[in-house]
Amino acid sequence: MSPPPKTHPAGELAIIAAIRRRVTGKAYPALRLGIGDDCAILAPPSGHDLLVTTDFSLEGRHFRRDWHPARSIGHRTLARGLSDLAAMGAQPMAAFLSLALPRAVAAEPRWLHGFLDGLLALARQHNVPLAGGDTSQAPGDQVLADIVLLGIAPAGAALRRSGARPGDAIYVTGRLGGAAAELELLRRDPKFFRRATPDGQHPHLFPQPRLAAGQSLLRRGLATTCIDLSDGLSTDLAHLCTGSGVAAEIRLAALPRSQLLRRMAPTAARHALLHGGEDYELLFTAPQRVAMPKTLGGVPLTRIGTILRSARSRPQVVTIAANGKRAPLAPGGWEHFA
Amino acid sequence: MSPPPKTHPAGELAIIAAIRRRVTGKAYPALRLGIGDDCAILAPPSGHDLLVTTDFSLEGRHFRRDWHPARSIGHRTLARGLSDLAAMGAQPMAAFLSLALPRAVAAEPRWLHGFLDGLLALARQHNVPLAGGDTSQAPGDQVLADIVLLGIAPAGAALRRSGARPGDAIYVTGRLGGAAAELELLRRDPKFFRRATPDGQHPHLFPQPRLAAGQSLLRRGLATTCIDLSDGLSTDLAHLCTGSGVAAEIRLAALPRSQLLRRMAPTAARHALLHGGEDYELLFTAPQRVAMPKTLGGVPLTRIGTILRSARSRPQVVTIAANGKRAPLAPGGWEHFA
Repeated sequence: MSPPPKTHPAGELAIIAAIRRRVTGKAYPALRLGIGDDCAILAPPSGHDLLVTTDFSLEGRHFRRDWHPARSIGHRTLARGLSDLAAMGAQPMAAFLSLALPRAVAAEPRWLHGFLDGLLALARQHNVPLAGGDTSQAPGDQVLADIVLLGIAPAGAALRRSGARPGDAIYVTGRLGGAAAELELLRRDPKFFRRATPDGQHPHLFPQPRLAAGQSLLRRGLATTCIDLSDGLSTDLAHLCTGSGVAAEIRLAALPRSQLLRRMAPTAARHALLHGGEDYELLFTAPQRVAMPKTLGGVPLTRIGTILRSARSRPQVVTIAANGKRAPLAPGGWEHFA
Repeated sequence: MSPPPKTHPAGELAIIAAIRRRVTGKAYPALRLGIGDDCAILAPPSGHDLLVTTDFSLEGRHFRRDWHPARSIGHRTLARGLSDLAAMGAQPMAAFLSLALPRAVAAEPRWLHGFLDGLLALARQHNVPLAGGDTSQAPGDQVLADIVLLGIAPAGAALRRSGARPGDAIYVTGRLGGAAAELELLRRDPKFFRRATPDGQHPHLFPQPRLAAGQSLLRRGLATTCIDLSDGLSTDLAHLCTGSGVAAEIRLAALPRSQLLRRMAPTAARHALLHGGEDYELLFTAPQRVAMPKTLGGVPLTRIGTILRSARSRPQVVTIAANGKRAPLAPGGWEHFA
């Protein structure tokens, strides 16, 4: 009988050690015990609900190591979770990272440090500690990450997908289609983007989760529903309509177009605008009587349509062209690198 | 320019739908909103700390689909997280599952349902809702799971790895080495175990996280430290010593041996006893004056040794044989299927 397998390989311990060294000793009000015991210990403030979201970032599905700089992959891993909190109007409390690296990647610490650079810079920007997680050698050749975000919102106040009423106005933050457009540019010439930085000009490589806007919507009681645009406008608006049992119409001319769409052919640009995923802007509804500010958390708001009563006789979502022509908009969303 | 990739493949939507159907509408006191929005919403009771742990279960690292029945893989995925909560004396509040299936596995729903059978049966046993997670098509040929467990413990009372004092007695729950022994039997004849059920007789396939014992330790104030035996006695005792800045001695004759060790050669049995991982029993310390009960939460307790002052002149952990001979015990733990 052969003896059981050996202890943790150096690679795995090295990953843990590298992460622990990079997680600063900065004190966070809600974090009682971070990395290093069986569990992390948090003390959420009283009077608040706890919000939880988990998101995979899997090589070959959500990113490609030959296209995306390591720093972008780390940033995007955390951004996916933060954006889910933004969509509920929550304030982030802690992040947990499960990370599995193929042997060849673990043996070359530069990639891991680039990844952590991107993830921890975004974490610092939003004052969220990396409080724990898990590491492993990956079973295949792909980097595997799963991010968990915990957030808080005043009890009972978190923004949901249910609650939109016929007549409500539909808004988005920021501009749409930029992430899909930049992904197309990235695919054409990955080298051009190797030194990209999170300067707000890279909607795909370094998306900016709209936490301040979401928190403002909640605090000021402006919205009846909210969702983040991770799968694309057509898919996420359908999610929102299903969640609220309503329908919607949107005006094509009103959609705030990313400037990057100018670099695409018209058909591709239109597809990116309506179906392109991962813009991580917020899509929300509000009663028409609400005087919506022009910007929120530093991000412009645009009214793009109106909530309608749900009816079997018409599609869930319709677009209205500049000439008044109406057309159904089926969910045509995004599946990364399927 | 090619259009962006298509919408969610049927496989991915089917996974989500299968999980949602299997998650009952049963009400849980702390769960305000489960699967279906950007985040789950929980309302932890006041006066409690929140405990969080995440654990990968990756095919080829933590299980093999040609050895482990799907039901065992689901059970073990959840058990890993529950055992971390048990080690802190916490009460589970919610679980989140991130699950990626290769296309071939997603196309054959039987595997997924077996996996969910195992996971959800253990969840019901411990009254913990599956409150959310993420799904994806796996980028390679391996099933990838990451489990997140949230638990609660009275504020400031969670059991940690720090706090053991020289002179404290060292205890374990249950019996040791059984998981490593059963894994060896599984490796020899996987078919024999195909119909195994979680009847308490399968320490590897269906480990029983010691939640009741951990909660009792906390509630009755019996322990100075606690850790779960996931990596093996030698490794986890070293973790506990490092966490507390102490050393330890254990008496080999006192170790409660799993009956399955009788089916192994003496050398392999000794290795399984001292270094075999995934027993998911609790290892804890208590002042000698504490009158420790014989059982806790229905599980026998055994004193196995004593905490010593840390000293550079001697090893962190030593074993004492029946003839009184002392020998250093280096961490020789477990790395699954490395």
